[in-house]
Amino acid sequence: MTRLLDNHLAGRWQAGSGAGVPLFDPVLGTELVRVSGAGLDLAEGYAFARTRGGPALRALGYAERSAQLARIAEVLQGRRDAYYDIALQNSGTTRNDSAVDIDGAIYTLGQYARWGAKLGAARWLADGEPVKLGKDGSFQSGHILVPQRGIALFINAFNFPAWGLWEKAAPALLSGVPVVVKPATATAWLTQQMVADVIEAGVLPPGALSIVCGRSDGLIEALEPFDLVSFTGSADTARAICAHDNVLRYSIRVNAETDSLNSALLGPDATPGSDAFSLMVKEVVREMTVKSGQKCTAIRRVLVPQAHAAAATEAIAAALAAVKVGNPRNESVRMGALASRAQLAAVREGLAALGREAQLAWAGNEADLVDADPKVAACVMPHLLKVDDGDAAKLVHDVEVFGPAATVVPYRDADHACALARRGFGSLVASVFSDDVDFIARAATEMAHAHGRLHVITPAVGKTHTGHGNVMPMSLHGGPGRAGGGEELGGLRALGFYHQRSAVQAPPEVLAKLVEGAAPWQGGAG
Amino acid sequence: MTRLLDNHLAGRWQAGSGAGVPLFDPVLGTELVRVSGAGLDLAEGYAFARTRGGPALRALGYAERSAQLARIAEVLQGRRDAYYDIALQNSGTTRNDSAVDIDGAIYTLGQYARWGAKLGAARWLADGEPVKLGKDGSFQSGHILVPQRGIALFINAFNFPAWGLWEKAAPALLSGVPVVVKPATATAWLTQQMVADVIEAGVLPPGALSIVCGRSDGLIEALEPFDLVSFTGSADTARAICAHDNVLRYSIRVNAETDSLNSALLGPDATPGSDAFSLMVKEVVREMTVKSGQKCTAIRRVLVPQAHAAAATEAIAAALAAVKVGNPRNESVRMGALASRAQLAAVREGLAALGREAQLAWAGNEADLVDADPKVAACVMPHLLKVDDGDAAKLVHDVEVFGPAATVVPYRDADHACALARRGFGSLVASVFSDDVDFIARAATEMAHAHGRLHVITPAVGKTHTGHGNVMPMSLHGGPGRAGGGEELGGLRALGFYHQRSAVQAPPEVLAKLVEGAAPWQGGAG
Repeated sequence: MTRLLDNHLAGRWQAGSGAGVPLFDPVLGTELVRVSGAGLDLAEGYAFARTRGGPALRALGYAERSAQLARIAEVLQGRRDAYYDIALQNSGTTRNDSAVDIDGAIYTLGQYARWGAKLGAARWLADGEPVKLGKDGSFQSGHILVPQRGIALFINAFNFPAWGLWEKAAPALLSGVPVVVKPATATAWLTQQMVADVIEAGVLPPGALSIVCGRSDGLIEALEPFDLVSFTGSADTARAICAHDNVLRYSIRVNAETDSLNSALLGPDATPGSDAFSLMVKEVVREMTVKSGQKCTAIRRVLVPQAHAAAATEAIAAALAAVKVGNPRNESVRMGALASRAQLAAVREGLAALGREAQLAWAGNEADLVDADPKVAACVMPHLLKVDDGDAAKLVHDVEVFGPAATVVPYRDADHACALARRGFGSLVASVFSDDVDFIARAATEMAHAHGRLHVITPAVGKTHTGHGNVMPMSLHGGPGRAGGGEELGGLRALGFYHQRSAVQAPPEVLAKLVEGAAPWQGGAG
Repeated sequence: MTRLLDNHLAGRWQAGSGAGVPLFDPVLGTELVRVSGAGLDLAEGYAFARTRGGPALRALGYAERSAQLARIAEVLQGRRDAYYDIALQNSGTTRNDSAVDIDGAIYTLGQYARWGAKLGAARWLADGEPVKLGKDGSFQSGHILVPQRGIALFINAFNFPAWGLWEKAAPALLSGVPVVVKPATATAWLTQQMVADVIEAGVLPPGALSIVCGRSDGLIEALEPFDLVSFTGSADTARAICAHDNVLRYSIRVNAETDSLNSALLGPDATPGSDAFSLMVKEVVREMTVKSGQKCTAIRRVLVPQAHAAAATEAIAAALAAVKVGNPRNESVRMGALASRAQLAAVREGLAALGREAQLAWAGNEADLVDADPKVAACVMPHLLKVDDGDAAKLVHDVEVFGPAATVVPYRDADHACALARRGFGSLVASVFSDDVDFIARAATEMAHAHGRLHVITPAVGKTHTGHGNVMPMSLHGGPGRAGGGEELGGLRALGFYHQRSAVQAPPEVLAKLVEGAAPWQGGAG
């Protein structure tokens, strides 16, 4: 039997009951470890976090909690090789792809440590200047933000076991809110190892960081008023969480990041052969293949001028043909596996659905897999599809295939392109490839209402832009509508979710006392 | 048959089908008008608002829309007498109580007109300064807020037919978002008359303002992605809205303002005879009796030092004894009716529930009603209750009696007082009565996490403070947990709900162009 990973709850390591659920190597099919959250006393664990972890964190100021984040980043940095090894085994990712998750986590922690340090010894935030209520100024209105006093429960997705925890935990812990993380079962190992290392290093007070692996029964039932949930995963699960009686009864804040049919928009000015055109091709291929397309921010729809649809399709397909897929242990391989055989089945199902209205432009050949047995490995070749009529098409705007798949959709003019992007009913990100600043600015203000982020690539930033799908901690992550309606990151804006805003109507001397003890709330990255 | 009020939808006045539901004079019991929303084509009406009202509003800048708000305030000001007459008939309120609703609405519109004018010709907002992504600064991250592109559906409560509409419509219209209001049936007349006057005055473009009276079947079903809902009313209805499949599927933003067990906290320093003590008594009595206690912000729990519980109870009861209750047409009457016989029944039921654990300290005598027949009028005397053990008590923290009722709850020390306030599981407002600035500041930061607003009354502001229950547009209105988790007002902060925040990652010249066309997003009242 493989090792059963412990859970950390109520300040101690606890084994779940039963044999647990096995985690596999998605390339070799071998069993790696097992997880079980069965039989845990969640109510006790949450209560410990609320009554021990929360007060201990809140007794510190922002700068002291920032120092804890910096120390966590150090601990993780010191164990980096072990994490890459777990990612290789359990996620089937190439070294470059593992870096997005692991180094992305460490980078994000480091940024929040830096930003938080500037908030100093304060233990709450002052939001704006007091304003007079009445003419004589003897009575005024000010606003403060104070840390929430519940737990922050993270229910996370399988594709980012490292970054997915720390991009949420950094602002939560900085805010003084204790964290309970439930990683997705399939890739829980890396999350669990990181939590174990941080606990062992003694960086955080008891109750500040807990982890429950395995099945999530009862996680929501055990929530109480003032707790928070941040969920990343399918829209269906988000719906179940938001409709849960506890969440509704206590108005528990839920931040959800769910499905997203992100677009890449090639500007009308970008003809084949232009720099913008080439940058688009390069970025689409990168987004389709990084982490085998298992990024919620990956490009799913490629919006191109009608006249260039064929050329764009051809160029992307040609570039995809050069991508070697298979076992990431082979150095020639650029794209590894999906996270599991279950994901492979889901991707195949999604591709079959898309195929009902889109034509296949490139699908590679399974026989070309490198060092991977198609009957065992969760490997799939990149699939490029195309539709002729993006208005008549429906599935391409609705079905998120969570793998290396994208569809080329032709558009007539700029308005049509924006309307097609909007058909995603709310997305995390759209990128615009153009050398026409007026067009870009107009597209940005037209598309912003339906997107949490716009990523603009002009030829001038071909080498320096940060990537359509890379989530930078300085920028908001989240999107309206189908994308879940949440807001994460965005610099210190992320602290908003973990604080309660409260108006204080009082004489000036009371407000002065409150402002005195506060750091200014500014939202921005500081 | 009384007059059937029309609905305004799809840019035209439309009668609902059937006989409709009658609205009554809650003092005299006479039928006044009828409403019906049956048989309306809501999908058509919403679509008209989205495709005609929204674009017409968004074609203007903030300052132009501010001018529309100012014009609305003027129109309403010109028809003020008619509104007072409707309020007297349909809400059974005294002139002072009607003012809270009607003049409160006009004042709030005026404030938003003033604040919005400062945003100038801009059509979107820039949130903070761009920050570098990478060292050379060639690629940066900025944030903008752009108007939402759906409708704002307001489902409103019976207690504020005037203010309830305009405190929401002011920030929505200023943001460029078209409004559809569904007033509570019992008091829909005033809302409908105001909407009719504003439509007739031609202040707004077609589709910018719609009203549906009567039953609300299908209101949520007709929502589409990017629509918004702002709800004020019972926690049960909020739950049904938030759990609706459309809301969950499209992550429709819902702002809810629901039940709230607001507290007044008498500081440990405030002994009987002190100014703070007297101010507390005065404010509790005012909150219990203004609009017959039918304010979501009214004081429900009076937290007093154990040693002064008896004195406080006695003083409040004595002041209540002087309040004349009955027909507001009689000038001696200080407190009018509840909004309806249904509300009267609900208040009696709530009082009976509280009575299972609290003792009655004052209940007046129904025979003292002035010019009102207890068998016909929806009048109830103020009820003061008390409990001895606020920890053991449960109902006093859970049951909101939406009428002239409050309960005195003794506390041991400051921590105990804050813990008792928190037992409301999230409230709109708590007031603190004290002359000790250190105690006040500490209480404020301890209680803020569970309250949307704290209202501090020291002897120095006895005459100038704005009232525990009065909602000032400069201050956040809303509260966590049981209070619904929403945020309204708070100056220009209210615009956040009606905008989508989006990160724009781009070269500096693109961001400069976006910032050029934007007003700075600052949240505060400006």
